[in-house]
Amino acid sequence: MEIDGTPYRTIWVETPGRAVGIIDQTKLPHRFETVTLSTMEAAARAISDMLVRGAPLIGATAAYGMALAMNEDPSDDGVRRAHDRLLGTRPTAVNLRWALDIMRALLDNRPVGERAALAWARAAEICDADVEICKAIGRHGLPLIEAVAAEKPAGEPVNILTHCNAGWLATVDWGTATAPIYMAHEKGVPVHVWVDETRPRNQGASLTAWELGRHGVDHTLIADNAGGHLMQHGLVDLCITGTDRTTARGDVCNKIGTYLKALAAKDNGVPFYVALPSTTIDWTVEDGIADIPIEQRGGTELTRIAGRAAGGEVVEVDIAPEGVAVRNDAFDVTPARLVSGLITERGVADATAAGLKALFADARPS
Amino acid sequence: MEIDGTPYRTIWVETPGRAVGIIDQTKLPHRFETVTLSTMEAAARAISDMLVRGAPLIGATAAYGMALAMNEDPSDDGVRRAHDRLLGTRPTAVNLRWALDIMRALLDNRPVGERAALAWARAAEICDADVEICKAIGRHGLPLIEAVAAEKPAGEPVNILTHCNAGWLATVDWGTATAPIYMAHEKGVPVHVWVDETRPRNQGASLTAWELGRHGVDHTLIADNAGGHLMQHGLVDLCITGTDRTTARGDVCNKIGTYLKALAAKDNGVPFYVALPSTTIDWTVEDGIADIPIEQRGGTELTRIAGRAAGGEVVEVDIAPEGVAVRNDAFDVTPARLVSGLITERGVADATAAGLKALFADARPS
Repeated sequence: MEIDGTPYRTIWVETPGRAVGIIDQTKLPHRFETVTLSTMEAAARAISDMLVRGAPLIGATAAYGMALAMNEDPSDDGVRRAHDRLLGTRPTAVNLRWALDIMRALLDNRPVGERAALAWARAAEICDADVEICKAIGRHGLPLIEAVAAEKPAGEPVNILTHCNAGWLATVDWGTATAPIYMAHEKGVPVHVWVDETRPRNQGASLTAWELGRHGVDHTLIADNAGGHLMQHGLVDLCITGTDRTTARGDVCNKIGTYLKALAAKDNGVPFYVALPSTTIDWTVEDGIADIPIEQRGGTELTRIAGRAAGGEVVEVDIAPEGVAVRNDAFDVTPARLVSGLITERGVADATAAGLKALFADARPS
Repeated sequence: MEIDGTPYRTIWVETPGRAVGIIDQTKLPHRFETVTLSTMEAAARAISDMLVRGAPLIGATAAYGMALAMNEDPSDDGVRRAHDRLLGTRPTAVNLRWALDIMRALLDNRPVGERAALAWARAAEICDADVEICKAIGRHGLPLIEAVAAEKPAGEPVNILTHCNAGWLATVDWGTATAPIYMAHEKGVPVHVWVDETRPRNQGASLTAWELGRHGVDHTLIADNAGGHLMQHGLVDLCITGTDRTTARGDVCNKIGTYLKALAAKDNGVPFYVALPSTTIDWTVEDGIADIPIEQRGGTELTRIAGRAAGGEVVEVDIAPEGVAVRNDAFDVTPARLVSGLITERGVADATAAGLKALFADARPS
């Protein structure tokens, strides 16, 4: 997508076979800064320190991390160590293992001297494939927006609520939840996005509002508390969120708070769609509430926040009583019964075992 | 309640017939500062600038505002001007009008020379009456907590989720939602409170966590997004919130986000109670969603936040992209069907027209 008119991806080759560039997303929305990654360790830290985040982008960065590792140590031991180091960076992201397994399978039985070139080429393919997947999600989601627009007076925007950032910043380009939105925007279908702030890490305010604004898509920032009220008053036409992990029956594990919005959507007859690349489907899990372990993160994510002070400098401030106890679950699970449909790269599936099976009969393990 | 062992009310006479003291709640949780109000205008500003907030405390402060006004200009014109000035400070608070109407009715036909003394005495009565009402709410709510405790292994705390601040800081003492909690705590019933941060003004993190902590009640701060997830996992035994306005059929207009928690409570079979003094019942309104106008507040409440910087000084920082559009509805309406019961000073009413009528047959206008 564009940043003030300049097309970008979230990860790109800066020096062929040597270094990749990323956007330091921890600096957004205060500063737009890019970072050069020229070692495997730098790639690993970019993931664990969340300079890059979002399941697809984590996978892409890990793939380039393997490529960088092959410059450093292309031996069998080097492959194994890079794989393990990168895999340990984020516990929940299912794409991380997926990308690393692809890279390892590619490298394991190849001559050591060929490994670096192979890895760089494959990492680029993983990125391009992710872009194609997101574009396919966009193409399949677009008719949902167009259908709402067709029911409205000409020029009146379709109001779409999203939670967290499943935008292009979370992928290589286009995003998942945002892909249908960007496509509608490109096509001239008027859209307006309600952007949940997404406490505690504020990815909505920091990333989604930023990327929509820089690309020129109309949007309004709201508190996470506000979505239900807006739906009660007919101000939301549909919801589209992303997901970090989707179970075989269509339960959706996404950023904490997604479940509350899905409940409100159900209560008000607002369609609630979840956009996902099929790589986030975990075919081994059925009941997401019972069986997906939820990452517990540090309390300072809630009690400390970075912002621009009066002088323009970015400072961190403590906003809660000193020493307060905090519980910080990073994700929640939205049961499939609250999900209107799963927008995948192969089409929109019912959020049921049968619905997913119909689209992914080949992908599902027997 | 106590602040680190010292008993306080939120408003008190500092110099009899001359000045009252309040806690500057905009400084919490960073600094505990009290402010002396010795003019009507100071009282009006304390309300509009939210140094005091919460329906009952706003009413009490307005009553003392009328008393201060009678020191300045006890004429008929003075009574009218003070009434109008104070009434304009906050559009939503139904207690504000209630307290001002009482004061005006008291003063209107009395000799000018007696008005100041009458007003000071009546304002003190309004405060004492509020304390008694909150204690009555506590007594009626306490059995709900004790019933849960009785079902649990001895010593295991009753987990109560609350939203915003309906604590003693919002009233003169005890609070509404917190009154049953403080009473359980005093009685030795183990309680643990999940405190919603309550974006965008963070009253949960800033006020509820602070007051529970200072009084010694066990609590944990969570993001507004987290309550549904905790309920899915059996970690919430009951919810108790306050309300700014309650309709004749039991719809509850409370801080934005209350509705989302009530939906989650319903979805998970968690009882959802609302505590209120009957002065917040608006007998003229049935359908809260259709008929209660919702206060729209400035966007900087969402985009700017105050906190303690590294050096300990309190600074404000901007946390969202520059110039982002914001919508900031202060309240939402929870329909009565999601409310398990209304804890009032006369007992726990069903959240229905019949339930409220049964308890308040005398209060309801014909």
